[in-house]
Amino acid sequence: MTDSSLASETEQLKLKEEDDGFVVNPWEVTSSSDSGVDYDKLIKRFGSSKIDDAIIEKLEKITGKPVHHMIRRGIFFSHRDLFQLLTQYEAGKPFYLYTGRGPSSGSLHLGHLIPFLMTKWLQETFNVPLVIQLTDDEKTLWKDLTVEQSMKMARENAKDIIALGFDLNKTFIFHDFDFMGRCPAFYQNIIRIQKCVTFNQAKGIFGFTDSDPIGKIGFPAVQAAPCLSTCFPFIFGDKKLNCLIPCAIDQDPYFRMTRDVCPRLGFPKPALLHSTFFPALQGAKSKMSASDTNSAIFMTDTPNQIKNKINKHAFSGGQPTLEDHRAKGGNPDIDVSFQLLTFFLEDDARLEEIRVAYRKGELLSGEMKKIAIETLQPIVAEHQARRKLVTDAVLDEFLALRKLTC
Amino acid sequence: MTDSSLASETEQLKLKEEDDGFVVNPWEVTSSSDSGVDYDKLIKRFGSSKIDDAIIEKLEKITGKPVHHMIRRGIFFSHRDLFQLLTQYEAGKPFYLYTGRGPSSGSLHLGHLIPFLMTKWLQETFNVPLVIQLTDDEKTLWKDLTVEQSMKMARENAKDIIALGFDLNKTFIFHDFDFMGRCPAFYQNIIRIQKCVTFNQAKGIFGFTDSDPIGKIGFPAVQAAPCLSTCFPFIFGDKKLNCLIPCAIDQDPYFRMTRDVCPRLGFPKPALLHSTFFPALQGAKSKMSASDTNSAIFMTDTPNQIKNKINKHAFSGGQPTLEDHRAKGGNPDIDVSFQLLTFFLEDDARLEEIRVAYRKGELLSGEMKKIAIETLQPIVAEHQARRKLVTDAVLDEFLALRKLTC
Repeated sequence: MTDSSLASETEQLKLKEEDDGFVVNPWEVTSSSDSGVDYDKLIKRFGSSKIDDAIIEKLEKITGKPVHHMIRRGIFFSHRDLFQLLTQYEAGKPFYLYTGRGPSSGSLHLGHLIPFLMTKWLQETFNVPLVIQLTDDEKTLWKDLTVEQSMKMARENAKDIIALGFDLNKTFIFHDFDFMGRCPAFYQNIIRIQKCVTFNQAKGIFGFTDSDPIGKIGFPAVQAAPCLSTCFPFIFGDKKLNCLIPCAIDQDPYFRMTRDVCPRLGFPKPALLHSTFFPALQGAKSKMSASDTNSAIFMTDTPNQIKNKINKHAFSGGQPTLEDHRAKGGNPDIDVSFQLLTFFLEDDARLEEIRVAYRKGELLSGEMKKIAIETLQPIVAEHQARRKLVTDAVLDEFLALRKLTC
Repeated sequence: MTDSSLASETEQLKLKEEDDGFVVNPWEVTSSSDSGVDYDKLIKRFGSSKIDDAIIEKLEKITGKPVHHMIRRGIFFSHRDLFQLLTQYEAGKPFYLYTGRGPSSGSLHLGHLIPFLMTKWLQETFNVPLVIQLTDDEKTLWKDLTVEQSMKMARENAKDIIALGFDLNKTFIFHDFDFMGRCPAFYQNIIRIQKCVTFNQAKGIFGFTDSDPIGKIGFPAVQAAPCLSTCFPFIFGDKKLNCLIPCAIDQDPYFRMTRDVCPRLGFPKPALLHSTFFPALQGAKSKMSASDTNSAIFMTDTPNQIKNKINKHAFSGGQPTLEDHRAKGGNPDIDVSFQLLTFFLEDDARLEEIRVAYRKGELLSGEMKKIAIETLQPIVAEHQARRKLVTDAVLDEFLALRKLTC
């Protein structure tokens, strides 16, 4: 859908809810196909735009360097208004980055890193401020978690995020249960947004029912608010800035709603950069989930745990017998070990070599798993080493309300 | 309804919605009768308890002084769990007072004073802490008011409240748009409450529809939260204290909901002391309203304005002609000037004298109006004098987060 259409983005959506063999919303991502969600169909359903050559050319022209491998490989595959945001950026109009996470587990898993890795690349490439929201309030509302438990997870997750190497001078991290009580502008913007969205609209976008608690019904405004730069007066003053949100595409409903509301409040619509889902070890029918330990490689896993999980659980695209595999070749499109490499193996030539060898049957499933294990083990181990350096004092620096320097 | 009943207070309510010739909810108070709402029927509809002799005796026994004239005269006529709160108080269990107001006009009118005058009497009598909430967020959600306009009215209204003579050492005043951003515990308790109330329940209590904005649907938790003493850690630490709420009975739905939620969160149910409505000058079919200037005597009115408004607009219980009035007598029950005296003329003997003389036809309507005018003019003038002393600096002292000394 283009922005010039008369009907709102959220209303358009309702016309498109048909069964394409997959479910995608902020609380459920499942597909009936081994290759996962059909992302071309999802773009149509959501009304977003595909990341095309024009976007990639523009990114490379502005930044003078190749785009991130996750953009090249179609992992970040969809957007809203990114071209326009870049055009305005070229014309001197600044933007900030906003991303976040719902802290529902003590430790992050590999899939949780994806939006943050892209965000970090964008921040370093464009040298722009970044705000990161941890929705501990959401998790208390949706899960069997107390306020105290959610806040604790938010702090633990923030440490993992900091360990990815975000620059303190350019990054503000907040969790709602804490930040709401330290910045009146945040709540004020939430009420402004909540005044613009009816229950009917929220029901249409999020599938709420009359049996849902009123906290869930109001929550989308809490995730929408950071798109209004005036939530952060200590960073942005009263400027109404452009905002770019890198996120997995299941979060899009929140920001479709936000994009309907922003113009009514005198703010630009946030732009979005959407990723595909990170597959469960069991295959792309579902995404990697912290609540299913066997589906996920956690950032706290030992080298041995990583090896065992991949060997035992990673869905294979290989043939049932060695002879068959050599004769017919494997299917990298549904092989989870190969999929993990598309996310984490940066070398394009090497990745293509692996893909072709697997397809031809030259590379066996066990060998593919070995490459995945050897690629991921050092990534997780290095993360653990950096994570140890993130003390409570370091965390509190990131959570402090302050000016950013970029 | 007693607290021992199995069904919740809010569910019981649904069984009782029948047409008694009046409407009472937080947004509408109207009656088809000149004498106003039938309060006995309202007690039955809401399931509250009448202020009876046992309550009055207990109050006088504990405090060693007569009860306030607004209790004696049945202006505060209904309660929930007041007897129990007093019994616990006698046994050494402390309580705090909570009341509030939705700031929808720059100046208060006479009717707005009623809950605050009772609250002040209770505070002075029991020497207990008091928290006063100004729901500027509610007014932005319900009225055509921006955040900034509502916040300004909240500050102006707070000055009027302070001018009534509340003790700074025992009183904390807050407005939501400000306090939410200064005390994380407030938002945390709001989410705890919002997790316990479904849209279905909110719909049953408040009459919300699917077309209402999600902000309205979530708001009842904001008015409920101050019943949890942990919203004010700077006053009460982590103690879970008894709470008594003096308010007009149209606010009861908020606290019925709160009373259902409190036990689930480990807090005592708040006790309530309900007042009747302060009549519009045009008569008790509706309550005095700031949005209808002719219906209200504002605390900013001059002596002349008061005189003119009462003479011109105050509904009379007198007879059409002098002869008729002398012969048949007037009806004080529907005479607004007399009703105003029941609120503001403290001398019981004098009030009874006036009532009897009017009933007999000895006192004329014009004379009744004159007594009302002469009673109210000094009350308003003295308020204006005290109001002038309430500077922004004084206001900010009341708004400051601090310990109270009682």
